[in-house]
Amino acid sequence: MNMHVAVVGATGAVGQLVLRLLEERRFPMQSLRLIASPRSAGQRVPFHDKCLTVEALSPEAFDGVDLAIASTPDDVAGEFVPWAIARGAIVVDESGFHRMRADVPLIVSEVNPQAIAHHRGIIASPNCSTTQLVVCLKPLHDAARVKRVVVATYQAASGAGVAGQRDLRSGTQQALQGSAHDYETFAHPLAFNLIPHIGSAKTAGYTSEELKMVYETHKILGDDSIEICPTCVRVPVSNCHSESIFVECERPLSVEAARQIFAAAPGIQVWDNLSEKHYPMPLNVDGRDDVVVGRIRQDLFNPRALSFWCVSDNLRKGAATNAVQIAELLAAERRVPCAS
Amino acid sequence: MNMHVAVVGATGAVGQLVLRLLEERRFPMQSLRLIASPRSAGQRVPFHDKCLTVEALSPEAFDGVDLAIASTPDDVAGEFVPWAIARGAIVVDESGFHRMRADVPLIVSEVNPQAIAHHRGIIASPNCSTTQLVVCLKPLHDAARVKRVVVATYQAASGAGVAGQRDLRSGTQQALQGSAHDYETFAHPLAFNLIPHIGSAKTAGYTSEELKMVYETHKILGDDSIEICPTCVRVPVSNCHSESIFVECERPLSVEAARQIFAAAPGIQVWDNLSEKHYPMPLNVDGRDDVVVGRIRQDLFNPRALSFWCVSDNLRKGAATNAVQIAELLAAERRVPCAS
Repeated sequence: MNMHVAVVGATGAVGQLVLRLLEERRFPMQSLRLIASPRSAGQRVPFHDKCLTVEALSPEAFDGVDLAIASTPDDVAGEFVPWAIARGAIVVDESGFHRMRADVPLIVSEVNPQAIAHHRGIIASPNCSTTQLVVCLKPLHDAARVKRVVVATYQAASGAGVAGQRDLRSGTQQALQGSAHDYETFAHPLAFNLIPHIGSAKTAGYTSEELKMVYETHKILGDDSIEICPTCVRVPVSNCHSESIFVECERPLSVEAARQIFAAAPGIQVWDNLSEKHYPMPLNVDGRDDVVVGRIRQDLFNPRALSFWCVSDNLRKGAATNAVQIAELLAAERRVPCAS
Repeated sequence: MNMHVAVVGATGAVGQLVLRLLEERRFPMQSLRLIASPRSAGQRVPFHDKCLTVEALSPEAFDGVDLAIASTPDDVAGEFVPWAIARGAIVVDESGFHRMRADVPLIVSEVNPQAIAHHRGIIASPNCSTTQLVVCLKPLHDAARVKRVVVATYQAASGAGVAGQRDLRSGTQQALQGSAHDYETFAHPLAFNLIPHIGSAKTAGYTSEELKMVYETHKILGDDSIEICPTCVRVPVSNCHSESIFVECERPLSVEAARQIFAAAPGIQVWDNLSEKHYPMPLNVDGRDDVVVGRIRQDLFNPRALSFWCVSDNLRKGAATNAVQIAELLAAERRVPCAS
C-alpha cells in the first residue's frame, strides 16, 4: 500500500514545508525522492534520520514514482507534469498552470474531497488566498447559500517565497537606516508600505491574483453564481495571509449560528472575543494548519450579511498542508497504485 | 479681518502639522497661541521666523482667542471646549467627543461645507478613516446614489500619534533582532503583524473605530440609509491610511464614468494604471493633502457596483489639513468675529 513519493520543488519554501509535514504526519511512503531545478541538484536535505540528495528535474526523475507533490512555478509545471503522468505518477500540483482545466480537479480537502474521484493524473491545489476563503465559505454556503462575497486581502511576503521574506527583511533593515533596498520580488518597496497589486494585470482592471479568487472559488464550490469582488494587497508581514470577508447569503444567519457553523467546520478554528482582544493575527496563526476566524459580526443593516476576519498560514494550509492532505486523500482512497 | 488663533494640542503629531499647514497656506492671523498639556508647557516651537512658547491648557488660555484648532484626546476636548466657547472662541475640534452631537456640524471641507452655517461655537472634524471614505463617496453618491459600502481599512501607526510611530519603529528594530518590544500604544505587536482591532469593543462585535465610519459617514452625507459594513485593521505602516472600498449604487456606473467623477471631484487625485504599476500606496501618498484613488474596477457581476483603493495621509487630510480647511471656510465666510 505504501507509495514511492517524489517532492518536486523540494528546496523551495513550500517544498521544505511539504517535507516537514510528511515527517510530522507520518505519511505512508515506501521511498521518497527529492526533485528540484538543476541549480539545486546535489543539495543534501535531512528527512527523519536520513539525508537525501536532491535530483535535477528531468523526465527520468519520475521513473518508479507513484505520487509527486509539486510546488513549482507555472511554466515548470506545464513542462514536467506530462513527464510524470506518462510514467504513471499522480501529481498533486500547487502551481496555477492546470488549475482551471475542466479535466483537473481543484481540491481543498475539507471542501470538495469528493471531486478527487474524477482525476486523470493531476490534482490541483488552489492559490493560497482562495484556499482560506473557500474553507470559510463552504459551511456558510451549505447553511444559508452564499450569494455575494466582498473580500480584501492582506497578503504576506512569503507568498513570493523565501525570496519574498528575505526581501521584506532586508528592505525593512534598510528602511530603518534610511536607505533604499533593491527589491528582488516586489515592484515597489514593501517595508512600511502596502502594494495593492499581486500577480499580473488582467482583464477589467483586476489582477491575476484577484481573478483566481473568483474563478477558483467557483470551481471548488461548484457554483458560478456567487458574486465575488476581491481586492488583493501585499502587506509588510512575513508569513500568514489575512482576509476581511463580507458575505451576503440568501437566508438570514445570526452571529451565533455563524460562530457555531464555523466552529463545527473541518479545518477552522474560531478565536473571537473582541473584549478580551482575542482574534487571529499573522503572528499568532503562523505555523498552524487550520484557518482561524474571528471578528464575526452581522451587518448592521442586513440580517442576511456577515463580516469576519480570517487568517491562515499561507505556506501551510495555503500550500503545503493542503497538498499533503490531498495526498492523504489519495492514499486513503487507494487511488494511487500500490507499490510492490 | 485677521483672527487671534490658538492651536490646542500644539506639540502632538497633528498639532505640529497644523502649525506647518498654517505656515504653508499663509492662514490669515493676527496672533497665534500654542496650547498643550501642562507637561508640554514652556516648550519653544518655531513658527515662520519666530519661536513661540507653549502655554498650559487652562480656561484663561482662551482669553482673546477667536479661533481654536484643537487636536486632543476626547476627554480633554470634553473639558476645554466649553471654556473656549465661553470666552467667545470658535473651536474646530478634531476629537471624537462632540462629533455626533446634533448641534455640532461635522465637516469635511469638500463634502458638506454648507453644514458649517449651523455651528454654535464648535465644528467637528471627522475621524481619519471616515474622512477619506466620504471624500470618495460624495461624488459617487451625487452621481448614482450609494446604497451599500463594504470597506476594509489598512491603518497606519500614526493613527496612534507620534508614540504609535515610535512604537512601530522600535518594535520592528527589536523584531529584526529576534527580541520582544514592550508596546506602549498597541495591544499586540505591530511589527510584521496585523491587528484587526482599533479603538474599543462596542456593540454587536464592532469596534468604536468601525462604528465611527458608519455613523460619521451618515451624518456628513446626510443620509442614514447607506448600508456600511466596515472592518478596521492596524497595519505595520508608519503613516497614511489605506482603504479597500466596495460601493453598490442605485444606478449603474461604468469605470470610465467613475474615473471621471473622481478626477473632477475636489480633494481627489486619481492614480490608476495597473499595467504601469501606478496606484496609491502609503509611501507615495505620504505628505499629500489630497486623497488618492486607484484600482477602480466594476464588479464582475453587478454593473451597479464598483471597487477601488484609496490612500490618504491620515495626519494631513485625515486630521490637520481638514481642520485647517474648516478654519479657512470660517475665515472666508466671516463667521469668526473680526479682531480690531
